[in-house]
Amino acid sequence: MVTRLSHLFLRTLRDDPSDAEVTSHKLLVRAGYVRRQSPGIFAWLPLGLRVRHKIEDIIREEMVAAGAQEVLLPALLPREPYEATNRWTEYGDGMFRLQDRKGSDYLLAPTHEEMFALLVKDLYGSYKDLPVTLFQIQDKYRDEARPRAGLLRGREFTMKDAYSFDLTDEGLERSYQVMRDAYERIFARLGLEYVIVKADAGAMGGSKSEEFLHPIGVGEDTFVRSAGGYAANVEAYVTPVPDALPIDGQPEPVTLPSADTPTIDTLVAHANAVAPRDGAPWTAADTLKNVVLALTHLDGTREVVVVGLPGDREVDLKRAEVAFAPAEVEAAGDDDFKRHPGVFVKGYIGPQVLGAESDSGIRYLVDPRVVEGTAWVTGANERGVHVTGLVMGRDFTADGVAEVSDVRAGDPAPDGSGPLETARGMEIGHVFQLGRKYAEALDLKVQDENGKLATVTMGSYGIGVTRILAILAEAHNDDKGLAWPKEVAPFDVHVVATGKDQVAYDLATTLIDTLEGERYDVVYDDRPKVSPGVKLRDAELLGVPVVVVAGRNAADGVVELWDRRSGERRDVPVAELLEAVRAI
Amino acid sequence: MVTRLSHLFLRTLRDDPSDAEVTSHKLLVRAGYVRRQSPGIFAWLPLGLRVRHKIEDIIREEMVAAGAQEVLLPALLPREPYEATNRWTEYGDGMFRLQDRKGSDYLLAPTHEEMFALLVKDLYGSYKDLPVTLFQIQDKYRDEARPRAGLLRGREFTMKDAYSFDLTDEGLERSYQVMRDAYERIFARLGLEYVIVKADAGAMGGSKSEEFLHPIGVGEDTFVRSAGGYAANVEAYVTPVPDALPIDGQPEPVTLPSADTPTIDTLVAHANAVAPRDGAPWTAADTLKNVVLALTHLDGTREVVVVGLPGDREVDLKRAEVAFAPAEVEAAGDDDFKRHPGVFVKGYIGPQVLGAESDSGIRYLVDPRVVEGTAWVTGANERGVHVTGLVMGRDFTADGVAEVSDVRAGDPAPDGSGPLETARGMEIGHVFQLGRKYAEALDLKVQDENGKLATVTMGSYGIGVTRILAILAEAHNDDKGLAWPKEVAPFDVHVVATGKDQVAYDLATTLIDTLEGERYDVVYDDRPKVSPGVKLRDAELLGVPVVVVAGRNAADGVVELWDRRSGERRDVPVAELLEAVRAI
Repeated sequence: MVTRLSHLFLRTLRDDPSDAEVTSHKLLVRAGYVRRQSPGIFAWLPLGLRVRHKIEDIIREEMVAAGAQEVLLPALLPREPYEATNRWTEYGDGMFRLQDRKGSDYLLAPTHEEMFALLVKDLYGSYKDLPVTLFQIQDKYRDEARPRAGLLRGREFTMKDAYSFDLTDEGLERSYQVMRDAYERIFARLGLEYVIVKADAGAMGGSKSEEFLHPIGVGEDTFVRSAGGYAANVEAYVTPVPDALPIDGQPEPVTLPSADTPTIDTLVAHANAVAPRDGAPWTAADTLKNVVLALTHLDGTREVVVVGLPGDREVDLKRAEVAFAPAEVEAAGDDDFKRHPGVFVKGYIGPQVLGAESDSGIRYLVDPRVVEGTAWVTGANERGVHVTGLVMGRDFTADGVAEVSDVRAGDPAPDGSGPLETARGMEIGHVFQLGRKYAEALDLKVQDENGKLATVTMGSYGIGVTRILAILAEAHNDDKGLAWPKEVAPFDVHVVATGKDQVAYDLATTLIDTLEGERYDVVYDDRPKVSPGVKLRDAELLGVPVVVVAGRNAADGVVELWDRRSGERRDVPVAELLEAVRAI
Repeated sequence: MVTRLSHLFLRTLRDDPSDAEVTSHKLLVRAGYVRRQSPGIFAWLPLGLRVRHKIEDIIREEMVAAGAQEVLLPALLPREPYEATNRWTEYGDGMFRLQDRKGSDYLLAPTHEEMFALLVKDLYGSYKDLPVTLFQIQDKYRDEARPRAGLLRGREFTMKDAYSFDLTDEGLERSYQVMRDAYERIFARLGLEYVIVKADAGAMGGSKSEEFLHPIGVGEDTFVRSAGGYAANVEAYVTPVPDALPIDGQPEPVTLPSADTPTIDTLVAHANAVAPRDGAPWTAADTLKNVVLALTHLDGTREVVVVGLPGDREVDLKRAEVAFAPAEVEAAGDDDFKRHPGVFVKGYIGPQVLGAESDSGIRYLVDPRVVEGTAWVTGANERGVHVTGLVMGRDFTADGVAEVSDVRAGDPAPDGSGPLETARGMEIGHVFQLGRKYAEALDLKVQDENGKLATVTMGSYGIGVTRILAILAEAHNDDKGLAWPKEVAPFDVHVVATGKDQVAYDLATTLIDTLEGERYDVVYDDRPKVSPGVKLRDAELLGVPVVVVAGRNAADGVVELWDRRSGERRDVPVAELLEAVRAI
């Protein structure tokens, strides 16, 4: 097949679109692959759709090879199943909701666990029917607060989502592994670097989940990994808990007037000067910082909680979101403080007056490092006064543990595999062992070998099709434009004829016949009145992996051959062209 | 490729689903092709998706062969473009509307004229860029009042919609013809009988439109055709207008006391008895029936109008909808009559007191047959009194003509090609010459040869993908199940192994190897503990065109071969199987 640029619905742009923040967005719009229609919602132009179909085909092939069966569920879904699993509420503002003409509630599917569970319930009833894994390639909708980064985070986007159904936990483990393996093959075929990290199952529920992250600076996820093989999204990182220390024999707390210690550092220096301890000096890690957070629960009630963490740590709000889900969390504001008059002495908050059982009734949670027997420098709940040697389990207690501290390079991997490094990545796949949460909510049971009803256990496996396209664009470009891997390129070869001499066009036509004979998919820049400069710039921008230019040496039967990805360009006699193209 | 029934996500049903009214709906659900998810919204199971993809591929191939380029626009669209063309309002309750988290209005696309026009405006600016025809295969949404008939009229459904853009009317005519020809090829490849009928452009606007109707009893459209080649949807039928008659010399109207004439027939008999006219006797076609209708305009105002039509005709409400669009029309109710006290004497309404210029101010419209000089028997606006010989243009006038009378077999074709026959059909394709309505509303202009801005003219071309699948099921079945044409069948060959004898299964496996070697797509019923009766019934229900049964004669190397569509079944030695399969 040959596509003529003079006919192709395409308009390349010199300048970056004003609303584009990331490279892939800029290039995909400039090169005429997509156009923005409204915030986070895009139209697919012919070039973009070609790349997209290739990505979908690779995913589809590997899914089928892994034994998954393709189905297609609607995007417009009734409220009731999502009500049963509570996600109608839990999704909050992130879900598009609407009513039909009769006033019935509907939603635009953000993901399809409920409907797949109901479909299997509808058709299957026996353990003999299981396991089964179903998938679809389908549009999804999420009403992002800040749709940005082009296709990397859209409001209408395309996913391959798969769901496995098993009778036993071991079966789920197997089905999960099969999908995980398929994902590795898919990303390998796409030439897409990935790291598999432990992930927080989050709003999806379930017992185990892993993310496939593509390491990339514009990534929205931070992950950590050790040389010894541990890898996790920071939201899933679990702080190693130190051993408890003996309380007996520890000195009593000492009151520390501390009016002039505006920072942790000055407080630590002051404590070491005025109230030093035996053994080691106080460090920032020995101060107990008490951060006031405000939670908004699903029922709309607002709760103030305090989290105590070592003074050398900060609260990571994304980790806090996971810790307190499904409640929403933010720093407490003036109104929150006002609702608890007299409790909080700003800058001098200490745990002594906190706790669900205390007079204040305010829940007090601590970082996992705050174990029994640890001694702390912290506030005395009095302006200008701290206290040193306040011992956990003796002088104060906590209502629980909260994993809200930030995770840093150098922190230990929880499995003892060494210090962590941190990196940023973008989620390109996610595999979940959902377990029985959805099946229980929707009453998905089958008869087991003994004729008894048993609840099915589910897995859920997602790949962002349109996001992958953007990440491939992000990973494969240079300052001149896109440079697609051949597996997903919109065409195999881009033939350009330049100049006013008919011989170049005639040569191009001959070459295209040859290339078509070898089943190459060719785009031909046959535009008659476009300058060579524009044609060559467009060839660079469009990013087809092989470019053949029939220009000034056409009369001698010589063309210029570009390897768009390596950047190599050389003159090739026509007789050797096919071989040279094959080599790229 | 072989698909094993023991693995396939499929459950066939013995009984028709309770909510299914039409055959295709019953069979597609029973045979496990689709499942209903909510009213008018379906999930596609593996078999259904296979057929659907085959239909899509045929459509896509023919679109590309006709020079159309594939793109993909979003389903979730902003309000503004639809506001510009007034369709945000005109679509009424039929459109799904929603708001995002910021309160901006969106819709789920019922069709995409606006967005395609804006896309071309966005990318193109010169006459040199035209013509261009774009298409997509995409989900559409319409909030039907009574979703029913399964996939024949859904609320979420899939269409191929194409749009052409030209500078000139002649260009549009050419682009239209190219698409029309492509549609003929598509329906020919799908083996789908069709009639091309003149259609009402309706809410789409535009100058010319034709429908591809598949003649079928459950069809929602009534069309008429003549032996001489005229064909039109009844909504597009234009009544031939008789010549006006001379008024001079016609007798004056005669008052006709008519208290005891409850029907047209009794009135006619009474008139001929009491007030006969010279020449021909009065007939039902000479009575003028005045029907009171109520229009609801887009701005919500309600208007009462009266339509005068020959007494042997009825008002066809679908034709009335077209005549009065975009207003909605229904029979006037008591409330409407109350708003015009003293005007309407039920059973005796006559045109003498009607008309926009009359005291009542009520618009009076007439059937096209009510031309100047025609004389009528009609009401005298007084209980128990009619009048005969009331002459149009002398004794009463009208504010205009309304095409609301029903069209009947035997009526003349407007082009003089003979009497009409009527039939029912289902719309499978629709081609429109939209003209400049959308381009004007959205300011889609390009520079013409002289550098002046010229408004583009558009065409719009739709095929219902999912509806076609249902119609194919409707057209190809028998009392045992589906019987797909081979072009769209989910598999080429259905191999069944029956009995407890391993030899049948071994033979089946060998046959499948042979069939796969010839690139046939095979489904294999390998289910070990399912009875032969169930397997054979499922083979009939699923409707794969060729069925091969390895059963009792397997040991002799003989299988039973079914041609599912002709119903022929015969024993075939294995050695001759391939040839016999090819012959079907």
